[in-house]
Amino acid sequence: MEKANIESSKHGYVMTGGSGNQSYAKNSSFQKQDTHVYMMSWMQRDVADATKLLIQNAVSEQLNPRNFPGLETFYVADLGCSVGPNTFIAVQNIIDAVKLKYQSSNDKIPEFQVLFNDHVQNDFNTLFKSLPLNREYYASGVPGSFYSNLFPRSSLHFVHTSYSLQWLSCVPKEIITKNKGRTYYFGAGEEVTKAYARQHAADFANFLQARAREIVPGGLMVIVLPSRPNGVSHSRVSFNILHGIFSSTFVDLTKKGMIDEEKVDTFNLPIYHSSPQELEETIKQNGCFSIEKIESLPKITRVDVPHVVSLSIRAITEGLIKEHFGEEILDGLFEHFTNKLVESIKDVESGLAVNLFLLLKRKDEDTTTV
Amino acid sequence: MEKANIESSKHGYVMTGGSGNQSYAKNSSFQKQDTHVYMMSWMQRDVADATKLLIQNAVSEQLNPRNFPGLETFYVADLGCSVGPNTFIAVQNIIDAVKLKYQSSNDKIPEFQVLFNDHVQNDFNTLFKSLPLNREYYASGVPGSFYSNLFPRSSLHFVHTSYSLQWLSCVPKEIITKNKGRTYYFGAGEEVTKAYARQHAADFANFLQARAREIVPGGLMVIVLPSRPNGVSHSRVSFNILHGIFSSTFVDLTKKGMIDEEKVDTFNLPIYHSSPQELEETIKQNGCFSIEKIESLPKITRVDVPHVVSLSIRAITEGLIKEHFGEEILDGLFEHFTNKLVESIKDVESGLAVNLFLLLKRKDEDTTTV
Ligand SMILES: Nc1ncnc2c1ncn2[C@@H]1O[C@H](CSCC[C@H](N)C(=O)O)[C@@H](O)[C@H]1O
Ligand SMILES: Nc1ncnc2c1ncn2[C@@H]1O[C@H](CSCC[C@H](N)C(=O)O)[C@@H](O)[C@H]1O
Repeated sequence: MEKANIESSKHGYVMTGGSGNQSYAKNSSFQKQDTHVYMMSWMQRDVADATKLLIQNAVSEQLNPRNFPGLETFYVADLGCSVGPNTFIAVQNIIDAVKLKYQSSNDKIPEFQVLFNDHVQNDFNTLFKSLPLNREYYASGVPGSFYSNLFPRSSLHFVHTSYSLQWLSCVPKEIITKNKGRTYYFGAGEEVTKAYARQHAADFANFLQARAREIVPGGLMVIVLPSRPNGVSHSRVSFNILHGIFSSTFVDLTKKGMIDEEKVDTFNLPIYHSSPQELEETIKQNGCFSIEKIESLPKITRVDVPHVVSLSIRAITEGLIKEHFGEEILDGLFEHFTNKLVESIKDVESGLAVNLFLLLKRKDEDTTTV
Repeated sequence: MEKANIESSKHGYVMTGGSGNQSYAKNSSFQKQDTHVYMMSWMQRDVADATKLLIQNAVSEQLNPRNFPGLETFYVADLGCSVGPNTFIAVQNIIDAVKLKYQSSNDKIPEFQVLFNDHVQNDFNTLFKSLPLNREYYASGVPGSFYSNLFPRSSLHFVHTSYSLQWLSCVPKEIITKNKGRTYYFGAGEEVTKAYARQHAADFANFLQARAREIVPGGLMVIVLPSRPNGVSHSRVSFNILHGIFSSTFVDLTKKGMIDEEKVDTFNLPIYHSSPQELEETIKQNGCFSIEKIESLPKITRVDVPHVVSLSIRAITEGLIKEHFGEEILDGLFEHFTNKLVESIKDVESGLAVNLFLLLKRKDEDTTTV
């Protein structure tokens, strides 16, 4: 068997754990759960509702219980689950849809096993403590990078991953010394942008290869991620404009003497917003999945509060920044970032923000080649 | 399907997490791994070596690959795993033995999935971070009490549990107000001891029922636990003598005015040391398992250091004590306990200490009744 592939702490990008004010648990709950906290909202608000319906349709149209004769346990995995609550909502949506499908086709409803995956540095303690008390599934946590194999061969029936695949496995090696005065590819030359794109394609190829091995024929995979519309330049994408402003915040701080220029030159965010076309190419190259649906989620209309946007970027990047710059810079950095956002949030809003919903199905053939 | 049974924080007894000096990770590593720390040694030292051989024999004699035709993945669960390293050693012993068995019977070696279980309050973050880097198995963490169902039906091939089943699910309700001036059944009247025994029998019955549902026919279960030899009175068992001394430490502190008498009256350790006979009765009542082996591990001969014994009791009881008495009392309590042990360690050593090794096999029949 293959050895489990363990990533080093260096390349583990995890959300801030625990349940403090800056934590992802707090900052990802959208207003249904906590009217005081609107966090991760810029990227994920409203997405949960939209995906619920899409998941229902995906299961009702594409899942065939007859593909899994005599199935006792239906295995669901959520990859890049963080600490909740979004993962619990997604998983419940999936289970509800599968139960409905089994009921309507008069098949015996199986038991459910849910596998919650994230980096080994993720705060699984908090995740476990917040598991819904009345859940009707067996829960387990699976630490490790989803760019490697995490589960036994042919052991999964439904894989879900949301807002995670924009994270690269690492900063593209080629650019480490070639992206001075920036922490992201926004505003960089073609060479840097292409290096990011190549890294993403390589990572996504690894992701698909691992999943092709793990998902049973007929099994489904839902991928939700922030994306760049086909044919649109990187600089017109909201997520990129936002990260561009964030990047310039670092540069401002070097000018104020608050951080070292050289430190900024060597820091880059391992995030890339791919287009549907880029994703489709890699999926076709892999060859084990059919694309059953690829569509944009409804555009988010609500106006964003700079403070909230700043907090959500903090929740997702704090760990990396701490590792590179030290903890001291965090408060000053994000205070300045919030101030900059107050002036430029309109630029972000004027950009294109597309959240992509992809439904893949594991094909029957080729199971022996992976 | 059954709803997953979630225990409240109140009844979760977990070892101290993290990797500080008082943590279980540090204190359970026996001398092979760290000559400076001899912890949990009083109870677990040498046990790992002895069980290695027993596990090898168990698998070679009792596991039949033909019971699992075409098996792709062999599922191993360790129940009450704490944070390691003992669990990693046990799991590796099991996998080595199973591979050997498959090899020698010319069957294709399956992949391995290991399920690490402990209470939801266990420090899974530390466990995950210390997973062996070169492991040849898929690892996942399963939070929850092993007195309830934790895994899907017929999903396990080998279950291991070591030094965990002496923990009751709760303090027996009958004695909550009836064991004044003591925190354990050592030295208590028959009524209290019987209540502990009843609680253990009820808990162990639940444990067996849950496992009978989860383990496939032909699957094995190894149970290692500290025990009272048949026919020997509770007061002659080393573990009980030790807990008796620990109990009197609390009383001493009330006399010194350091803790409230009423607090001690309402505190009891949910630990019970059962005899082989008691275990066998419950196993027979359950009816789903055959007893393939029941034997004592070799007696531990090394001399124990009071300070080390005290630390190991601290590692396993600290959480409970903190919850009931508050953190402040810990240092004083264990300092006094260590002093008492210096004077009375000979009493503990003169008692009988038996570590029991049980090998059960899931029977074929009756699978429909659970
Ligand atoms: N290679 C990788 N393997 C596993 N998890 C990863 C990963 N790269 C990023 N992640 C995780 O992906 C998560 C992104 S946050 C998204 C959380 C959740 N799915 C939601 O939709 O709200 C983080 O917790 C991060 O640690
Ligand atoms: N009902 C229960 N369910 C799950 N774990 C339990 C439990 N009761 C006790 N435990 C766990 O059992 C462990 C006992 S310590 C033993 C650790 C390890 N098996 C070894 O042999 O070294 C603790 O981690 C405790 O939290």
